[in-house]
Amino acid sequence: MIHTKRTIVLGLQPTVYGTPEKGWPVTAPNADEVNRIFRSAPFIVDLGLQLDSLEPGACTSVLLLEPRHLQQDGFVHAGVQATVADHTAGAAAATLVSPAQIVLTAEFKINFLRAAKGERLICRSKVLKPGTQLSVVESEVFCIASGTEHLVSKATATVAIVTPRGG
Amino acid sequence: MIHTKRTIVLGLQPTVYGTPEKGWPVTAPNADEVNRIFRSAPFIVDLGLQLDSLEPGACTSVLLLEPRHLQQDGFVHAGVQATVADHTAGAAAATLVSPAQIVLTAEFKINFLRAAKGERLICRSKVLKPGTQLSVVESEVFCIASGTEHLVSKATATVAIVTPRGG
Amino acid sequence: MIHTKRTIVLGLQPTVYGTPEKGWPVTAPNADEVNRIFRSAPFIVDLGLQLDSLEPGACTSVLLLEPRHLQQDGFVHAGVQATVADHTAGAAAATLVSPAQIVLTAEFKINFLRAAKGERLICRSKVLKPGTQLSVVESEVFCIASGTEHLVSKATATVAIVTPRGG
Amino acid sequence: MIHTKRTIVLGLQPTVYGTPEKGWPVTAPNADEVNRIFRSAPFIVDLGLQLDSLEPGACTSVLLLEPRHLQQDGFVHAGVQATVADHTAGAAAATLVSPAQIVLTAEFKINFLRAAKGERLICRSKVLKPGTQLSVVESEVFCIASGTEHLVSKATATVAIVTPRGG
Repeated sequence: MIHTKRTIVLGLQPTVYGTPEKGWPVTAPNADEVNRIFRSAPFIVDLGLQLDSLEPGACTSVLLLEPRHLQQDGFVHAGVQATVADHTAGAAAATLVSPAQIVLTAEFKINFLRAAKGERLICRSKVLKPGTQLSVVESEVFCIASGTEHLVSKATATVAIVTPRGG
Repeated sequence: MIHTKRTIVLGLQPTVYGTPEKGWPVTAPNADEVNRIFRSAPFIVDLGLQLDSLEPGACTSVLLLEPRHLQQDGFVHAGVQATVADHTAGAAAATLVSPAQIVLTAEFKINFLRAAKGERLICRSKVLKPGTQLSVVESEVFCIASGTEHLVSKATATVAIVTPRGG
Repeated sequence: MIHTKRTIVLGLQPTVYGTPEKGWPVTAPNADEVNRIFRSAPFIVDLGLQLDSLEPGACTSVLLLEPRHLQQDGFVHAGVQATVADHTAGAAAATLVSPAQIVLTAEFKINFLRAAKGERLICRSKVLKPGTQLSVVESEVFCIASGTEHLVSKATATVAIVTPRGG
Repeated sequence: MIHTKRTIVLGLQPTVYGTPEKGWPVTAPNADEVNRIFRSAPFIVDLGLQLDSLEPGACTSVLLLEPRHLQQDGFVHAGVQATVADHTAGAAAATLVSPAQIVLTAEFKINFLRAAKGERLICRSKVLKPGTQLSVVESEVFCIASGTEHLVSKATATVAIVTPRGG
């Protein structure tokens, strides 16, 4: 397996998220915070996870799979799936908070349903129950292999809504 | 924030895990499989997670934190912590399986207890209940900041023990 | 609060589950095992949980709420909701196993979305991913208050499929 | 199996919890709220769960097992174990809140480690991380069979700390 060298310089990518076809940058509710979540999180930029679409209480993201995303047996690592599920859940919750607030994952649980192998992950997250202090969000992670989409994991996250002091 | 360029060539690091002081390579039970788990999982090598110590039913790993491991507010990304907790749990479970078997995470749940900021993560995983088909493993993730260790997250994982066909 | 006296004699109820209108006893796939699960589980009979409907990979149950189902602040106890979610999930999984097999919950996670108060709980469980050793099932618990249905909790369960020795 | 008839009249038991040997009623921190949680929760009184001991951030409860606590194969029902784990976790969290506050379970996850069969359940709950809005609590449920104690399930609960309006 050849591991490709990557050079990532944060902040220089004009469009790390979205696609021109979809009319990005996002102008959905609280889009600034969601854009910030995808653009300013180094681990997410490094992973290659991109914001795909956004609506109130929902977010979809996409990850083009590379060899570096795999575990020892050639499947997408559980940690990659968990990261995608968690981050997209946070973004879905962030569409419903006020501008002065940020979101932090309090906990999540994820079930791995099938060994994931393919070209792309798509994560669809949806707020199951919005709250003022806690929102509960579900994330479904699909793997696209040869054009067919399979649900590979599903997560439920409890997201805390926090008003930073001094912020 | 400066994001350092990384060049990773799998298989060329003579000691991606352990330390000479600890007498590695590992000779603990099923060490071959655990070494394989840490050495041959591209996502884990890429992340920088290293095997630190091993005993029957337990595993400890270490991650030197870099800016690329953070989320948008400067804390260690939940996905990084989840990856570390999951992978080390799998390694702990792998110490108790037979050579022909591999481990796969069926599900895990993780609670984030404090915002994680510091120089290093240490993950200590322990099998709570070994089984022939499923093992239940707990992972505690600590963050070391200025020499002080804080528990930042705790996970419980259900690990499936699988005998690959033809393997 | 008045706590009504209950006298329950297992096995004497001619129809502890289902309703004549729905054509019970159940004749859906593996209905014998599902009927057994609802009829022969003392805790379930005692609680008052009744099987409502059944199809391959899915089960619905109903609980008429009584004062004894509440916690200290007048809401349906989390343990009641968890029991209903777990048991109905097991029944949904049982519709897909072979006659010689039984189901046992390996783990579940449940989120409580709203304080539950009303006349009735309805639980709808559906197998998200069937397996030969493990099935993943989701349960949604609704509370009916004054004719309106609210989702009060949602659970994800990992159900082990076991072939009893000597059975 | 004979199911014993139970007559429960709330509020008439002078000591539904604790034992004289242990010097109850409880005088530990916030004991009033914990006593209320065990005494005024009809589902808990009905189940037979009793408060055993209490200290800041920790609670132990006991359940004498009866046939009515079992599932269809003669084991303690997962819902009984979940109820015990949840309720004792809430009590442990309640030892650390102020008198005007109440606790509500936001979510929990429980792993069932062994089929539970025996005379008694003991649940030991401990706050892993106290918080002002959320506390994370762990509960270990043990089953005592012929004098030997086995860990049968383990739960992690996120408990919300709420200040009731008008209270």
